[in-house]
Amino acid sequence: MKYGARNQLIGTVTDVKKGAVMSQVKFTVESSAEMSSVLTVESVDDLNLKPGDKVRAIVKAIHVLLVKE
Amino acid sequence: MKYGARNQLIGTVTDVKKGAVMSQVKFTVESSAEMSSVLTVESVDDLNLKPGDKVRAIVKAIHVLLVKE
Amino acid sequence: MKYGARNQLIGTVTDVKKGAVMSQVKFTVESSAEMSSVLTVESVDDLNLKPGDKVRAIVKAIHVLLVKE
Amino acid sequence: MKYGARNQLIGTVTDVKKGAVMSQVKFTVESSAEMSSVLTVESVDDLNLKPGDKVRAIVKAIHVLLVKE
Amino acid sequence: MKYGARNQLIGTVTDVKKGAVMSQVKFTVESSAEMSSVLTVESVDDLNLKPGDKVRAIVKAIHVLLVKE
Amino acid sequence: MKYGARNQLIGTVTDVKKGAVMSQVKFTVESSAEMSSVLTVESVDDLNLKPGDKVRAIVKAIHVLLVKE
Repeated sequence: MKYGARNQLIGTVTDVKKGAVMSQVKFTVESSAEMSSVLTVESVDDLNLKPGDKVRAIVKAIHVLLVKE
Repeated sequence: MKYGARNQLIGTVTDVKKGAVMSQVKFTVESSAEMSSVLTVESVDDLNLKPGDKVRAIVKAIHVLLVKE
Repeated sequence: MKYGARNQLIGTVTDVKKGAVMSQVKFTVESSAEMSSVLTVESVDDLNLKPGDKVRAIVKAIHVLLVKE
Repeated sequence: MKYGARNQLIGTVTDVKKGAVMSQVKFTVESSAEMSSVLTVESVDDLNLKPGDKVRAIVKAIHVLLVKE
Repeated sequence: MKYGARNQLIGTVTDVKKGAVMSQVKFTVESSAEMSSVLTVESVDDLNLKPGDKVRAIVKAIHVLLVKE
Repeated sequence: MKYGARNQLIGTVTDVKKGAVMSQVKFTVESSAEMSSVLTVESVDDLNLKPGDKVRAIVKAIHVLLVKE
């Protein structure tokens, strides 16, 4: 299984918040940073996501904004 | 300075590859994972990005795809 | 502070509509055009956005669709 | 003709820069601000974009990042 | 009317689910596959989308993730 | 293996065009429609994409723009 995206992080789901259309899934990655993904309620149901689940978070490089402070 | 995005990672630029229109910037984050951003050549020039620079990588939660394996 | 994105507009928040997971923020830019951003409720809370606030709206060039009519 | 996107700006193309795969199109909007779109070389050819052309720039609200400075 | 995007599919709306901020529109394309779009409630209202409506679904090539299994 | 995205199409690669930073991959889906994905040259190399390969194309619902004509 190979994904055509540069950024892939393995995380553990910590929270799932459900709205009418969209859900927000929080997960921690190795460095202990907390991250979030927003996806449809249906997708969360399909994946049956719940705290403790392992997920792979995939982000295309084009979606990463860089800021120099 | 506050950003309206859930995912923010501090990284160090390791490589800049330049095309005609788009450039790819590689950077490592704390956990030593390597990540990539693709932005216009002009943006890379504006930020004057080069290896060793500190950058903040920002990703809206909506752009994160979750996969359960 | 420099942003790796081609499109940056300064606007004034006119309205914040809150859902369970996502919020919609309306703002006007200099030309008086009304624009919208959708972000997580948490991000809106982090930024403490309310009508009258000044915001910078950032859009990567890759997210702009062009239509010729 | 109606577009399911909150942000629509009418602009005039000022420049087209062509790469191997992607092209960058610059255009000015009413307020005289300069904006950019990156699309495939093929799409630019389909639209036959050249300086002076009128374009409608469409951005889904979800792709707008807000920053409070 | 020409769109600067590589992927365009003609579909028929089958369902509209409304949240507070975002709505999800389901539609079938020629091959009978079911697809979904998430857009603001306001955009769905602007388009007055309801089951049976014909829509054009547009996806920029940059938003398509490829996976090889 | 489950993907947190509403839109998944199985296709066959027909062409790979390589730039300096980005590559464009064309593929046909069941209904014979031609589609395109743009990803980094590195990702195309990782997947070793070539004409005839089967790919799964994944698009988050939030990235689908609807137009009513």
